Amino acid sequence: MKFKQLKDPLLYDGSQIEPMWAFKNFNIKGSSLITWIGPMNIHKDEIIDYEDVSLEIKADEMLHFIIEHYDCQPADLRLCYHRQRIFVTIIKDILDLFGLDIQRNGDDLFFNEGKLSVSIATCSASSMKIHFGVNIKTEGTPAEVQTAGLMDAIEGIDHDMILEIAQKVCKAYKNELISIEEDIYKTRVF
Amino acid sequence: MKFKQLKDPLLYDGSQIEPMWAFKNFNIKGSSLITWIGPMNIHKDEIIDYEDVSLEIKADEMLHFIIEHYDCQPADLRLCYHRQRIFVTIIKDILDLFGLDIQRNGDDLFFNEGKLSVSIATCSASSMKIHFGVNIKTEGTPAEVQTAGLMDAIEGIDHDMILEIAQKVCKAYKNELISIEEDIYKTRVF
Amino acid sequence: MKFKQLKDPLLYDGSQIEPMWAFKNFNIKGSSLITWIGPMNIHKDEIIDYEDVSLEIKADEMLHFIIEHYDCQPADLRLCYHRQRIFVTIIKDILDLFGLDIQRNGDDLFFNEGKLSVSIATCSASSMKIHFGVNIKTEGTPAEVQTAGLMDAIEGIDHDMILEIAQKVCKAYKNELISIEEDIYKTRVF
Amino acid sequence: MKFKQLKDPLLYDGSQIEPMWAFKNFNIKGSSLITWIGPMNIHKDEIIDYEDVSLEIKADEMLHFIIEHYDCQPADLRLCYHRQRIFVTIIKDILDLFGLDIQRNGDDLFFNEGKLSVSIATCSASSMKIHFGVNIKTEGTPAEVQTAGLMDAIEGIDHDMILEIAQKVCKAYKNELISIEEDIYKTRVF
Amino acid sequence: MKFKQLKDPLLYDGSQIEPMWAFKNFNIKGSSLITWIGPMNIHKDEIIDYEDVSLEIKADEMLHFIIEHYDCQPADLRLCYHRQRIFVTIIKDILDLFGLDIQRNGDDLFFNEGKLSVSIATCSASSMKIHFGVNIKTEGTPAEVQTAGLMDAIEGIDHDMILEIAQKVCKAYKNELISIEEDIYKTRVF
Amino acid sequence: MKFKQLKDPLLYDGSQIEPMWAFKNFNIKGSSLITWIGPMNIHKDEIIDYEDVSLEIKADEMLHFIIEHYDCQPADLRLCYHRQRIFVTIIKDILDLFGLDIQRNGDDLFFNEGKLSVSIATCSASSMKIHFGVNIKTEGTPAEVQTAGLMDAIEGIDHDMILEIAQKVCKAYKNELISIEEDIYKTRVF
Repeated sequence: MKFKQLKDPLLYDGSQIEPMWAFKNFNIKGSSLITWIGPMNIHKDEIIDYEDVSLEIKADEMLHFIIEHYDCQPADLRLCYHRQRIFVTIIKDILDLFGLDIQRNGDDLFFNEGKLSVSIATCSASSMKIHFGVNIKTEGTPAEVQTAGLMDAIEGIDHDMILEIAQKVCKAYKNELISIEEDIYKTRVF
Repeated sequence: MKFKQLKDPLLYDGSQIEPMWAFKNFNIKGSSLITWIGPMNIHKDEIIDYEDVSLEIKADEMLHFIIEHYDCQPADLRLCYHRQRIFVTIIKDILDLFGLDIQRNGDDLFFNEGKLSVSIATCSASSMKIHFGVNIKTEGTPAEVQTAGLMDAIEGIDHDMILEIAQKVCKAYKNELISIEEDIYKTRVF
Repeated sequence: MKFKQLKDPLLYDGSQIEPMWAFKNFNIKGSSLITWIGPMNIHKDEIIDYEDVSLEIKADEMLHFIIEHYDCQPADLRLCYHRQRIFVTIIKDILDLFGLDIQRNGDDLFFNEGKLSVSIATCSASSMKIHFGVNIKTEGTPAEVQTAGLMDAIEGIDHDMILEIAQKVCKAYKNELISIEEDIYKTRVF
Repeated sequence: MKFKQLKDPLLYDGSQIEPMWAFKNFNIKGSSLITWIGPMNIHKDEIIDYEDVSLEIKADEMLHFIIEHYDCQPADLRLCYHRQRIFVTIIKDILDLFGLDIQRNGDDLFFNEGKLSVSIATCSASSMKIHFGVNIKTEGTPAEVQTAGLMDAIEGIDHDMILEIAQKVCKAYKNELISIEEDIYKTRVF
Repeated sequence: MKFKQLKDPLLYDGSQIEPMWAFKNFNIKGSSLITWIGPMNIHKDEIIDYEDVSLEIKADEMLHFIIEHYDCQPADLRLCYHRQRIFVTIIKDILDLFGLDIQRNGDDLFFNEGKLSVSIATCSASSMKIHFGVNIKTEGTPAEVQTAGLMDAIEGIDHDMILEIAQKVCKAYKNELISIEEDIYKTRVF
Repeated sequence: MKFKQLKDPLLYDGSQIEPMWAFKNFNIKGSSLITWIGPMNIHKDEIIDYEDVSLEIKADEMLHFIIEHYDCQPADLRLCYHRQRIFVTIIKDILDLFGLDIQRNGDDLFFNEGKLSVSIATCSASSMKIHFGVNIKTEGTPAEVQTAGLMDAIEGIDHDMILEIAQKVCKAYKNELISIEEDIYKTRVF
């Protein structure tokens, strides 16, 4: 599973959830984890979650993760949502190390009752994709939702620290999936 | 997903990980979650984890969970281990509510560097099974492993409280899987 | 599996076979069975059966069923066609209760050598869809095909009776699928 | 799908449901449908339906069908039970041609409230198996169950007619599965 | 698996890799193998291999094969690429009979260090597709690639001989897949 | 995919085809390729190919390969036999480099009409296994079969050269599977 951290800000407009985005844009072949800091403003045509169709989904600054998995052929949306949940618990546990009390509900994280994150998973016939975004600031988030941001939650946090968190999350997620495969190798089945 | 709490102690000897154990013993049809308090002493022939073949796996008193899933046909061991991980994070989060600082590593929980739990997943062609056991006391656990128990970790905890924890864990796990299915229902795919 | 009977007539133009139609139009999440009375005139772009590409597929009044299944991930068109066949035999058996002698050939029903029904199944990566339409009248059906309608077959039948039939069919189909799952739960595998 | 009618009576003792029985006994390679007339007395160790574990499953004379499918890899018990249901509706429809009023409930057929049939499906990792048995006489069937037999239901029926029915059922089942595959070939998917 | 040899030249423009092309154009239902001689010039919108997006993929005269498989539901791109590799080794072995020394690297064939072939595989939810094209002449192939053609490699070869080769390749591929299925039928699994 | 060459001779008695043999004997976790030189004499209880049940399967000295794959969950015997065919073509191509004219028929290799190899594939719910054995000498092979051995085919070949061949085969097979995965990563699907 390849890891890449984008240095420059990139608008998350929903096109990044399309299959093979990492290959088409960065020539990354295979399962990958791309992370960067940037705003979010999802184009209507790119909405994956039909519940969100009439909502604004935006923020001025978020930490983004785009994950693509090719190991399961054909792709399995159920497995993908299980991985999303595992990813969310990993990011929660790493934020908890900062002494935060983050709450998780499904694929959402909350800090002080403010929504800290957005996430979606989807698939094509051959790959599974996950987007996870964490608000850095609450600026630019939809007015009708109570939101929270990493900068509210962790005093003195800066971009470097956020990128370090991102790196830790990616490493832990990758290791988690490796440990799952390793558990398969030692298991007697019936 | 059916839930059952056994009132009487039951030795976990490994036979409970066999497919359809809940049906054969309690006439429970379909996906289920069974929980009880009892000792553990796994019979050599029932060992699922080939790394454990030469080890003693035992404890005088544990909180046991046996999960069986039939929703995925044919059964998929990889999906099953993803569910196991989700289960472990759920139990960790619920124990954290008691102010504990539980560490997770793969499918293991640790308290104060003592191993608090054992777990395995397996499958047959038609069902997926998970066993998760949490030490209540450290008595009877293998001498060569540093272990921890709920009674060390949570002062004043008793069987009723433990059964309540078990119930909360089961409910949260069931709700998590429902929320995953519900996410599938709203997702546009490519 | 959710069931909904639409009160108002709705033209079946083929768009209803698209994945997630029930969710996008009626906010129904998950596997569902929607039934209504209405005309049919399938838009060329919505044709699923490539054998029908140059045909008119239309009728002035039909009883429509739209089924969506999410239980199997990834969706399996073969399983879906098996379910379609089971659905057709169920509707046949329920119409037989009226003393009719309905003939089935694959996914087609015939009454007195007149084609009584149209049906198609399809899938996306995450859901399986079935449309089944039964002619109520023969008016408006293609001139080059010998057709039959429920109103020819069952003297004195009216819309209320037809909706009752629809409800029985849906209930029987849902129970059939439940009984299949329950058979899985009790089966020893090799 | 190969078809074979055994001329000599054969006791159905449950061993015939094991994977590859047709290959090991008749050198039949691949998906097959074997039919014969003979008694039934299922050996305890061969019971597939755990609900039947404490029951006697026997009859003096039945028409037996053993089906094996290899087309779906890995084998899928859910698909197999769908096929079993389709098989049961086919045999019902063919018996109905004799003017009988057979009732179906899941995988059971009833005549005059007497149980006419037994059936089970199962699978290994690579093949799916179905047994279907129809009572010819009620002699030898368990005392505690109300049973029926083809000889009660169809006056003057003899072994030749029964074998002819068997042949028709097998041909119709085979054609049904072919028609399902052919429907796949013409279907646009999303 | 149906086989068809097109008599007239046909431009391979990439549209032939779309699912159900054989059905829509030749009314061929089910798995099929179509072969013909013709030029190649792939339309940008039809490019399947994202590595080729900025390349010219063209030749004045090639032997083309289009394969479609429906046996595996849902379609599996991984299996499809395994079949592509088997196809390539078969064509290599048949060309070797002419005394050529063809080299294979993945899905590419080389003669005297010249690229002799192009190939791609893809799938929809319900079918798996393979295109394989062998240069007959090097005329019209991209200037920046060293290419080879059958007419360079095999002295005196003409269209009739090439079509005969095509027929042998198709027959051998079909037999290979049949032999794989037959191996499944005789295999004990665990 | 891990590779291990056993230094000491080992009798292939069929037990090596069992799932997880590499893990239980050499602590190798995950997909692996084990190769060694040794005799073969398959114990009746270990026969996987039911066609071989009444045959002697033995040889005094063979080059053995045991392959285990865990990447596909649940394991798929059809995919496994495709991999076996790819493996056989790879070994054929590498032997051809010695100027041999090896013939392949399904999973069998022949030299001068003598059977050079034996092979089988099988699977459990979680892993896929392949055994491939090449005769080094014809001594000890069944009298009723015409056999060939590497020592007849390649003058002056010795154990070191054979082990080198084995290494090349394993490397080429591993690279082939990697190249298949890489092709998936660049493929647009429908």
